[in-house]
Formats: sequence, C-alpha cells, structure tokens
Amino acid sequence: MAVLLGDWGTSSLRAWVIGPDGDVLAFRRFPLGVGALGPGEAAARFEDDVRPALEARGMPALLSGMIGSNLGWAAAGYVDCPISLDVIAKSLTSAAPGVRIVPGLRCAGLAGPDVMRGEETQLVGWLVGEPARGSGRRLVCLPGTHAKWVRMVDGRVEGFITAMTGELYALLNAHGTLRFSHGPGDAAVNDAEAFDQGLEAAGDGGALAARLFSVRGRIVAGELAPNGSAAYLSGLLIGAEVAGLHPLMGAWTDAPVDLVGDAALCAWYARAFDKRGVATRFADGEAVALAGLREIWRLAG
Amino acid sequence: MAVLLGDWGTSSLRAWVIGPDGDVLAFRRFPLGVGALGPGEAAARFEDDVRPALEARGMPALLSGMIGSNLGWAAAGYVDCPISLDVIAKSLTSAAPGVRIVPGLRCAGLAGPDVMRGEETQLVGWLVGEPARGSGRRLVCLPGTHAKWVRMVDGRVEGFITAMTGELYALLNAHGTLRFSHGPGDAAVNDAEAFDQGLEAAGDGGALAARLFSVRGRIVAGELAPNGSAAYLSGLLIGAEVAGLHPLMGAWTDAPVDLVGDAALCAWYARAFDKRGVATRFADGEAVALAGLREIWRLAG
Repeated sequence: MAVLLGDWGTSSLRAWVIGPDGDVLAFRRFPLGVGALGPGEAAARFEDDVRPALEARGMPALLSGMIGSNLGWAAAGYVDCPISLDVIAKSLTSAAPGVRIVPGLRCAGLAGPDVMRGEETQLVGWLVGEPARGSGRRLVCLPGTHAKWVRMVDGRVEGFITAMTGELYALLNAHGTLRFSHGPGDAAVNDAEAFDQGLEAAGDGGALAARLFSVRGRIVAGELAPNGSAAYLSGLLIGAEVAGLHPLMGAWTDAPVDLVGDAALCAWYARAFDKRGVATRFADGEAVALAGLREIWRLAG
Repeated sequence: MAVLLGDWGTSSLRAWVIGPDGDVLAFRRFPLGVGALGPGEAAARFEDDVRPALEARGMPALLSGMIGSNLGWAAAGYVDCPISLDVIAKSLTSAAPGVRIVPGLRCAGLAGPDVMRGEETQLVGWLVGEPARGSGRRLVCLPGTHAKWVRMVDGRVEGFITAMTGELYALLNAHGTLRFSHGPGDAAVNDAEAFDQGLEAAGDGGALAARLFSVRGRIVAGELAPNGSAAYLSGLLIGAEVAGLHPLMGAWTDAPVDLVGDAALCAWYARAFDKRGVATRFADGEAVALAGLREIWRLAG
C-alpha cells in the first residue's frame, strides 16, 4: 500500500508519496509551516491542499515535526530519554483517521527540561543509514534554527541539549541594531574570512551578549567591512555554541562529531569544530528525515 | 543665558531648558528616537518641533546620545579611553549654528573595539554627583538596551564592555519562538520567583543559546507558568550577563558596583549581583544624564 510521509516543521512541509515497492512516487515542498497555520487549520490544509497536490487522497499518512506540538494539528506528546529509537514507532498519535504523528523526545537538558520534535525522526533515519552508527558512543549535532546536540550509545538516545543559535542569528539580522551594520548582498554570508574573525571573537563562548556587540564595535572602528558582518555574526554565534557545548558533551566519545542537516550550514559548523581540532562527518538532513519516516512506518507496520 | 539640553537616544529625545540661574524652565519627552528618523530629518524636527514646543527658538543647544552617530544628525566622533571625562567638553562637534553634540567613547573591549554614546554624559553627571566618586577604583554598570560595564579610576574611564542584554530580551519577546511561551499580561515581568529561576538557569553564563531554550523546555514540562516566562527570560539574560562579566571586571575594585539607570531595571540587576554576594548602589539614569549635560555645558563655557 502507498503511504504519504511528511516532515512538517515550523517553516514548511516536505511530503513524499512512497509506493508499495518503496519507490518515491511524488515529492513536494509546501509553504505551510506550522508557525503560519491558524488554530485548527492543519487538517483542512492537509486534506484540501496537500493530498490533492500529491494525488494522495485516502492514503494513510505519517507526519513528524512541529505538527505534533500544541501549535500544530494534534499534540503527539513526548517520550523520555534515555530511549531506544524503536520505541518511537510504538508511540504514534492518531490525529485523524489514517493520519498518525510521531512523538517528540524529552530529557533533562543543560538548564532544565529539553525537548525535540522532528529531529528524533532524523536520528532514526541516520541510524539505519549505516549499521556502524548503531554501536558505540556518538555525538550527533543537528544544526538549524534550534540546533540539537545528541548523545547516543548503541543506537539509544541518552540525552540532548538544544541551542537557539539559528534563531538568534535570524532575529539579530532581521530586527536588531546589528542589522544596521550589514552591507547589501546575500553573498556576504559566504565570507569565510569574516566568519573566522567571528569564530575567534567567540572565545570560550561566555558573555555572549557582550561578544555580540563586537559586530557594531568593529564596523565603527573599520575593522570589519559592512558586507562581512553577517558572516562574522554567524561565526560568532556558531563559535560560541561549539565552544560552550563541546566541552560539556564532547568527552562522551572519541569518535568524530556527526553533523546532520543542511549541507552548507553543516560545512560552517565543520569549520568551527575543525578550529578546535575536532573531526566531523556529514549526513544530509532531508535524506535522513525521509529515511526516518520510512523506518518508523515500517516498524509501526 | 538659557540653554537647551537634550539626551537624544535611539528611542526618544528628552530635552530640558535651563535658565541663566540654573533652574529647569521646561522639560519634555519627544517620541523622536534616532532609530525612527529618516536621513537628514533630525535638523528639521529639532527646529520645527522641539524648539517651538519648549519655547527655545534661537537658544544654544547641547545634545548627547545616538544623535551623534552616523544614523543621527552629525557624526560627533569618539574619544579614546583611557580618558579623563573633562576632555569630553573640549571635543564637541557643531551640528548647526549654536547646536553642539557630545562625542562618544571608544576602547578595546572584550571581543574587539567597543563604543558608547550617551552613557559618557551619564558618567560625567554621576561623577559630579558625589565628590567621593572621583577617587579610587569603581565599577559602574549602566543597564539598558545595550548595558555598559565601565571601569573608572580617580574619575577617569579606563575601559568598558557593552552587553546587548536588553536588546536580546526585546527581540526574543517580540519576534522569537519563546514569545509563544508567554501568557497574557505585563504583570508577568514582576514575577520575582520566575526571575530567580532564570538567574539559577544562567549558571556560569556560558552556552547562552542553549540556556535560552530552557524557557520552552520548562513550559512544555509544566515547570514554569506561561505568565512567568518573561520574568524567567529576564533573569536568565541578566544572570548570564552578570555571571559572564563580573568575573572579568569585578576584581577591579572592592567597592560596591554602582548601578546607573532606570530604577526598576537596576533593582533586577541588584538582585542578580546580590545572588553572587556582590553589593550595589543606585543612581537614577535620567538625573545623571541631565547633570552630565549641565556639567559639559559648564566646562565648554
């Protein structure tokens, strides 16, 4: 039987139709992020827009991501760490007839309880991608709006910490004083020299609110070109995240850090880890999301 | 001769008319923040709106604050630290006939060059408020959108560090994911218990982007009431600032930390310092701004 699989996050829905033999029959990205849905709107959008566009009327569906939060379609709850990931497939929530949602994970984090929603599905997909990933201790880092640092042992999630690095970057660029420091042009974010300056300015990651003001200070002093300030800010925030969290979580394992996510963003994180002498490996975030949804669907039977 | 004194910052202009005998003849707050002025608009607003409202046509004027930045009326430059504050009165910039602007200060900060604009005038006013302030080592903390931590010795500014704590609070409350955690009602910011929870969560101030996510984690886990989340966020950000900067700057002096600014905000900072066993004293920010403008005007002659 064909199935509709969806990675439904805050900013968009990525949906695949998988045929009975496992082939991808259709794929589409919808600008229906949970952050932009009105209360109770998810069901209507799914039935009226998503299913017709994918010719998937009446097909069973499995969804993961923020669609399972209290801002989404139906609250899909959380399962507590430490946890073996095959438990996820036994903990699905029914949002409507034939539509099931993957639960999030919860653990004791750095400064209180921590939660993830969507990344647990990526972890399942990452795990089945290579048998070796399921044995021994691993540190998996999933950069993004809310980056996740995850300790895994023998395929089990022991715990994790979320860092709002991507959100701080977006807020400071779009609404804050520092936006006045930026020159024109998106090319600026690819300025490796300015990114490295930012990494350097991150220091030990402490006093972040003070280090951030160095964007303004350097522009005023002529030490940073306006069209490099976005890359500098990115380097500073990613550098502070890595400097703050790797000492806390890195001793977990001698293995390279596994980066999972967008290729370009993971390359910047790899640069920040490399500066600290930490090796990394990369896996594509969208590919592991699909692999995770497939695996959970298979296990749920 | 009467004079028009103005503290013209990013969000508003506070202007006083001082008579020949030193009395305040008029005061008014104008919603003409530099952040909302179009290019070249400052001169027209000042002549057409401010002067008539204060009956101050043709009166000499002295202005301080962001009006002296490259986003304001005329770039009033910076003087470099360490510096004796009487140098400020010798470094004014003429923006128009009879209108002079106070320069900012510049120093080597925590992660690159640092700058202030407006606070130098408050420091002048704070200094003349009590003779004792001009001798020995002091650590002055001016909370605000961009908090300043200033090392002073014998009335001289040795250096300072800016922390964007107030701006991060405003951005996260207005535009970020954490705003979904907030319940209704401004009373929430006065929740001392939630503020203290935030102070605790600030830890050593490191990994701030991760600690911030604890707002969301605690709400989801039911450990924090939605109407306490703004106060918790405030405690976390102020706590991280104090935990990050006091170890760097506090060894400078055994004297209590001098807090200068808004009374309510300074009270929250005092609470954060107190938790670390550090005593504080308070001086009102608007009063010292006026005192500083008066003193600079007197010295400029």
